[in-house]
Amino acid sequence: MFLTRTEYDRGVNTFSPEGRLFQVEYAIEAIKLGSTAIGLKTKEGVVLAVEKRITSPLLEPSSVEKIMEIDEHIGCAMSGLIADARTLVEHARVETQNHRFSYGEPMTVESTTQALCDLALRFGEGDEESMSRPFGVSLLIAGHDENGPSLYYTDPSGTFWQCNAKAIGSGSEGADSSLQEQFNKDLTLKEAETIALSILKQVMEEKVTPNNVDIAKVAPTYHLYTPAEVEAVISRL
Amino acid sequence: MFLTRTEYDRGVNTFSPEGRLFQVEYAIEAIKLGSTAIGLKTKEGVVLAVEKRITSPLLEPSSVEKIMEIDEHIGCAMSGLIADARTLVEHARVETQNHRFSYGEPMTVESTTQALCDLALRFGEGDEESMSRPFGVSLLIAGHDENGPSLYYTDPSGTFWQCNAKAIGSGSEGADSSLQEQFNKDLTLKEAETIALSILKQVMEEKVTPNNVDIAKVAPTYHLYTPAEVEAVISRL
Amino acid sequence: MFLTRTEYDRGVNTFSPEGRLFQVEYAIEAIKLGSTAIGLKTKEGVVLAVEKRITSPLLEPSSVEKIMEIDEHIGCAMSGLIADARTLVEHARVETQNHRFSYGEPMTVESTTQALCDLALRFGEGDEESMSRPFGVSLLIAGHDENGPSLYYTDPSGTFWQCNAKAIGSGSEGADSSLQEQFNKDLTLKEAETIALSILKQVMEEKVTPNNVDIAKVAPTYHLYTPAEVEAVISRL
Amino acid sequence: MFLTRTEYDRGVNTFSPEGRLFQVEYAIEAIKLGSTAIGLKTKEGVVLAVEKRITSPLLEPSSVEKIMEIDEHIGCAMSGLIADARTLVEHARVETQNHRFSYGEPMTVESTTQALCDLALRFGEGDEESMSRPFGVSLLIAGHDENGPSLYYTDPSGTFWQCNAKAIGSGSEGADSSLQEQFNKDLTLKEAETIALSILKQVMEEKVTPNNVDIAKVAPTYHLYTPAEVEAVISRL
Amino acid sequence: MFLTRTEYDRGVNTFSPEGRLFQVEYAIEAIKLGSTAIGLKTKEGVVLAVEKRITSPLLEPSSVEKIMEIDEHIGCAMSGLIADARTLVEHARVETQNHRFSYGEPMTVESTTQALCDLALRFGEGDEESMSRPFGVSLLIAGHDENGPSLYYTDPSGTFWQCNAKAIGSGSEGADSSLQEQFNKDLTLKEAETIALSILKQVMEEKVTPNNVDIAKVAPTYHLYTPAEVEAVISRL
Amino acid sequence: MFLTRTEYDRGVNTFSPEGRLFQVEYAIEAIKLGSTAIGLKTKEGVVLAVEKRITSPLLEPSSVEKIMEIDEHIGCAMSGLIADARTLVEHARVETQNHRFSYGEPMTVESTTQALCDLALRFGEGDEESMSRPFGVSLLIAGHDENGPSLYYTDPSGTFWQCNAKAIGSGSEGADSSLQEQFNKDLTLKEAETIALSILKQVMEEKVTPNNVDIAKVAPTYHLYTPAEVEAVISRL
Amino acid sequence: MFLTRTEYDRGVNTFSPEGRLFQVEYAIEAIKLGSTAIGLKTKEGVVLAVEKRITSPLLEPSSVEKIMEIDEHIGCAMSGLIADARTLVEHARVETQNHRFSYGEPMTVESTTQALCDLALRFGEGDEESMSRPFGVSLLIAGHDENGPSLYYTDPSGTFWQCNAKAIGSGSEGADSSLQEQFNKDLTLKEAETIALSILKQVMEEKVTPNNVDIAKVAPTYHLYTPAEVEAVISRL
Repeated sequence: MFLTRTEYDRGVNTFSPEGRLFQVEYAIEAIKLGSTAIGLKTKEGVVLAVEKRITSPLLEPSSVEKIMEIDEHIGCAMSGLIADARTLVEHARVETQNHRFSYGEPMTVESTTQALCDLALRFGEGDEESMSRPFGVSLLIAGHDENGPSLYYTDPSGTFWQCNAKAIGSGSEGADSSLQEQFNKDLTLKEAETIALSILKQVMEEKVTPNNVDIAKVAPTYHLYTPAEVEAVISRL
Repeated sequence: MFLTRTEYDRGVNTFSPEGRLFQVEYAIEAIKLGSTAIGLKTKEGVVLAVEKRITSPLLEPSSVEKIMEIDEHIGCAMSGLIADARTLVEHARVETQNHRFSYGEPMTVESTTQALCDLALRFGEGDEESMSRPFGVSLLIAGHDENGPSLYYTDPSGTFWQCNAKAIGSGSEGADSSLQEQFNKDLTLKEAETIALSILKQVMEEKVTPNNVDIAKVAPTYHLYTPAEVEAVISRL
Repeated sequence: MFLTRTEYDRGVNTFSPEGRLFQVEYAIEAIKLGSTAIGLKTKEGVVLAVEKRITSPLLEPSSVEKIMEIDEHIGCAMSGLIADARTLVEHARVETQNHRFSYGEPMTVESTTQALCDLALRFGEGDEESMSRPFGVSLLIAGHDENGPSLYYTDPSGTFWQCNAKAIGSGSEGADSSLQEQFNKDLTLKEAETIALSILKQVMEEKVTPNNVDIAKVAPTYHLYTPAEVEAVISRL
Repeated sequence: MFLTRTEYDRGVNTFSPEGRLFQVEYAIEAIKLGSTAIGLKTKEGVVLAVEKRITSPLLEPSSVEKIMEIDEHIGCAMSGLIADARTLVEHARVETQNHRFSYGEPMTVESTTQALCDLALRFGEGDEESMSRPFGVSLLIAGHDENGPSLYYTDPSGTFWQCNAKAIGSGSEGADSSLQEQFNKDLTLKEAETIALSILKQVMEEKVTPNNVDIAKVAPTYHLYTPAEVEAVISRL
Repeated sequence: MFLTRTEYDRGVNTFSPEGRLFQVEYAIEAIKLGSTAIGLKTKEGVVLAVEKRITSPLLEPSSVEKIMEIDEHIGCAMSGLIADARTLVEHARVETQNHRFSYGEPMTVESTTQALCDLALRFGEGDEESMSRPFGVSLLIAGHDENGPSLYYTDPSGTFWQCNAKAIGSGSEGADSSLQEQFNKDLTLKEAETIALSILKQVMEEKVTPNNVDIAKVAPTYHLYTPAEVEAVISRL
Repeated sequence: MFLTRTEYDRGVNTFSPEGRLFQVEYAIEAIKLGSTAIGLKTKEGVVLAVEKRITSPLLEPSSVEKIMEIDEHIGCAMSGLIADARTLVEHARVETQNHRFSYGEPMTVESTTQALCDLALRFGEGDEESMSRPFGVSLLIAGHDENGPSLYYTDPSGTFWQCNAKAIGSGSEGADSSLQEQFNKDLTLKEAETIALSILKQVMEEKVTPNNVDIAKVAPTYHLYTPAEVEAVISRL
Repeated sequence: MFLTRTEYDRGVNTFSPEGRLFQVEYAIEAIKLGSTAIGLKTKEGVVLAVEKRITSPLLEPSSVEKIMEIDEHIGCAMSGLIADARTLVEHARVETQNHRFSYGEPMTVESTTQALCDLALRFGEGDEESMSRPFGVSLLIAGHDENGPSLYYTDPSGTFWQCNAKAIGSGSEGADSSLQEQFNKDLTLKEAETIALSILKQVMEEKVTPNNVDIAKVAPTYHLYTPAEVEAVISRL
């Protein structure tokens, strides 16, 4: 059974007899090995929280960036291959800047997400900018535009969904269950911070410290929490 | 038997000894895994109805778009890989806008469908816009032009047919039978709405709600039903 | 024996040890799966008749086009992959229009056929317009030019022959025998219509109706029969 | 033994361990399946005679062209894949016309043959005009230039030889023996016609008629015999 | 198990079923075969120290360059394939010079590192400058810019991290442990020199001499130690 | 053992584990199947002699060219694939004419040989002029320039050597031994003619006649012997 | 074990699971089959000495060039595939001439060596000038520039080292040991000549004669020894 699969997935972007795209499925496996990230949307704004795996005490924790700013009204958390995520984020930054320059107004969160997914979808096509394989990364894109706060979730197939709350990465299964239990539409941003971090704490093997988690919000502009601000959320758990 | 096939379908666009194109057949398998979509043509206009699989209560139902507008007089429902469908729809949107700009009139529904299928046919050709594999999606294209309302059905091989009614996706077999029984040329648009939704209800595993189905009509312009409008149709079942 | 073949036909356009081109032979198999088409040349003009497989009563019969106009003096009937045929016909339409524009006169039927076959021959060559595999379609090209009426038959290898009468598709073997018995050079166009349809009737599994056959003539201009005209021929059987 | 070969001939234009080019050898096999063609050089001019396989009485015999004019002083007979031969002949026609246009005089027969073989040699090279496989055709090129009449024979490897007489195709072995017995340098053109047709008659399975053979001469200009002229030669047998 | 892997890693840049990129993992193996390099960041500046494997007494030790200047405020130590490292360093030198020319100020250390990793990430993409395989080298990039001293570590996947101290190459495991024990943020540059060399001494099989180690600092400009300066550090051990 | 080799030589221009280039070795095998050619250098000039295999009495012996003129001061004899040799000779002719045009003087024999070998070396590189496989031919290049007479020998790897005497082709082994015995630097051109032909006679299976051998000299200009001149040399044996 | 390797080295420029580049290792094997070459650096200049394998007494010894001039201040000795070496040397000659033309001064020996290695490193990249496989050659590059005499050694991976003395080719192992014993920094050029030739003598199977060795020096300009000068060195042994 397993060997038979191998016959089909050598072409990076071809269907198997069952109508599946194996390279996309394998890329999704890469994400299951990644650190956990969580996003929650409230009426006040969106909260992102990620686990940072600091493999050595000599690493500069701030250089392990798993939450990045795309534009002043959009940020994203990532799980999977960091170098791939950087390429996507860099692409999105150029797109949003171009949009501001051309139209004199910020790009909407959905258009930004669509632009990211257009690039992700075209893997294996030999374009100048596209990759020869799927991007091995999932993103939680948090933003605030004329439609208010929004949270998007993308996967390596170039598909995206809008969510109220979502977890990605190795602990996503358990985290998603907890989110369904604890999420409601009337959460304050402060409550969302606490929920995000408490769920992250459950799926992490280590004690939560300002060194091994990052929190950011878009409310309505992107802000990455300082260690002191993270410490404050930790103390509320 | 099965192994022998694998010898032939590695070239994405080559014939097997029996004269078959396996990648196209595998792409059709991808559609059989997709959610069900139904289209019905009446004298008053065309109705499209789709099942939306909301895998988590935290997903924003409105962000799962399975019916999309192509131009103000054309809409389409899809089953299969959503990211592929977006590429085709985006291509069709550019084509119809170009046509309006060049000729000062809307593109006909058949020309729009042909333009979509020309792109779909050229998979594996290494063109700038074409894919390295077939598009894993079927579309029901509903439109209204100088010839009145029309409904087209496309498959991954780049072939299209004009229909009075058609179902695609995982429940298409049962739905097509029901359509043949219930369809007649004198249906009102309102009756078509009810038939489409009642057939969709039969093939869905969950209870029908405004959250997990979408309905749209082209009569003579595209309109996606609001949750209240969907609720109204549900209440008529 | 069978496995040995597979070693050679992976290169889409290479010879086997016996000097055969398997991809062309496999494409010919695709045509054997297609619906039957018949052409007859008379002194008055050429008649084309095709079977249309209407797989569902909800399909619009007129949208299943198996006879298409190339120029006002040339039409063609097809068997095999319809999307491939559309590409060839579209190519021929551009060629004949270019010829009219450049030389102020219609392109001859033979030159048009040659232009189609030049495109068909170059499969697997990586040209801009050529396919990565043979075109899986046979055409019966009926025309009328300075040399009077003519009927050409093309196959996926890019070869063509001029014929007095010819059948292609799944029922071609039986139909060709009947044509040899019934054809003579002094047939009237009306007699040719009747012969074509009576032979088509023999190889079709269903009852012949204006919905499941198409008839066209080039005498001296292309004309696709209306349902009423088809009905009239049926009534003469 | 046989399987081992298959390891080497997948690259269309690479050597086997014994220093052989298998694709060329396989293309030569394709010619052994072709109809027989014969050429004879006399002091008065060159005669070409070919067998035409008319597979159906409904085929127009004159549309099965196995002898074609290249320029008014050069003609050629072919055996193998007709569509490939057409490409070579079309290439030679352009070359000879270009030569007339550039230099104001006809191209010599040897230069024309060399131009054909240059194209044939470069198969598998990815050039614009070259094929991805060898041309599956042998040609007998008859011409008349400042050096008098000449007859050339080309094979799929791009090699050519000048001959006094030569047979190609399925019956070439027996025909070549007969030619060696019957040829001498003092034959008249009329005697050459008779010898060519009598040898062709021996290797054909059917009765020789103006419908199933073609004869042409270059003496000093190309002339394809009319059915009446062919009949006259038949009557002399 | 091992054979199964081989099925997946032939495409240089595709995922295995477990979501892994084998070529990157194999490139990391290449680095484990390389000589050891160590970097330490202090408030005064950054120290780099490398082992040089002088395989023959006839080799000119100074020509075995394992520490190279990128710009006057950035240097790097390398482990793995030296020729690959030269390409990356040459790329970075061009980038930093371009930056000085365009903006009239030095490029930041992080931007320089990012530019290096962008090139590394795009292996197998067929770009003009990118390689067909991952770069088989890890770098320790030491620099000093407006944010003070910094030390970056890059791997073949195109990922980078900021560190306080880091060892790469065959002895990196033991060296990293020693660094964790001995590093603190208040080290002087002189103490850092001593620690780096004493740790290097532990993992080297030979006696440390000015011939088989190189030391450099960026404090705040790049300086490669002379043999006498190296000798002075050795004498402090 | 043999099968193992096949794993390595599919890439036309890659090393085997033993550091061998198999396609070059296989091309050398092609030459071992070729007819024998011999070259001898004397102070008066260089003599070339080749065996011509006339497979049929109907072939024009003069059209089997195995010795060709490159420029008026350079000629070459060949063994292996004749069509390949023609390509190399044509390339050399263009190079020597270009050189005369650009510099107003003949190209030296060594530069001409180098130009031929540059083309031969680049097989498999996808250049416009290069082949996808090695040229399957060895050449003996005889010339006369400012350094006096010279004789070069080239092989499919693109390497060349200057020789006093050399044999290539199927009989080269025996012929080379005879050449070593009989060659000395003081031979007259006439003696060289006799030696070349007598050695050729030993390795040929047929009786030597003006029809089945060719002789040429460069002394100091290229001259291909007429049948009468060949007959004269034969008579001296 | 051996078979497993074959799975990885088909991509010419990809890593094996152990982090190795097999094509480079195989190319190094090609050099181990080559003739031996030796280089020695003294304060007065650099000496190069090579073995020439004269396989036939009819070969012109001077045409077997294993030491070549790059510029008037740089020469190189080679071992491995001579045709590959010629390409590298030709590339270096163009680079040094360009440098003289652009900057009005000779290129340094290190820059010249780097330029050679840049070309060697990029094998398999599909560039215009690069090869599809590694260059199967090692070079000893001797030069004299503003830094005095220098000797570089390059291998097929594109890596280079500066040496005081170095041997390459089939006898390199023994020769390197002898060089380590006999080399010291105060050798005169004359002593270096004697040492180089005496070591070469040990590893050669034949008697040393001016025919089967070449000697050159760069002191400070390139000079290839005449047979008489070689004889003089031989007589000193």
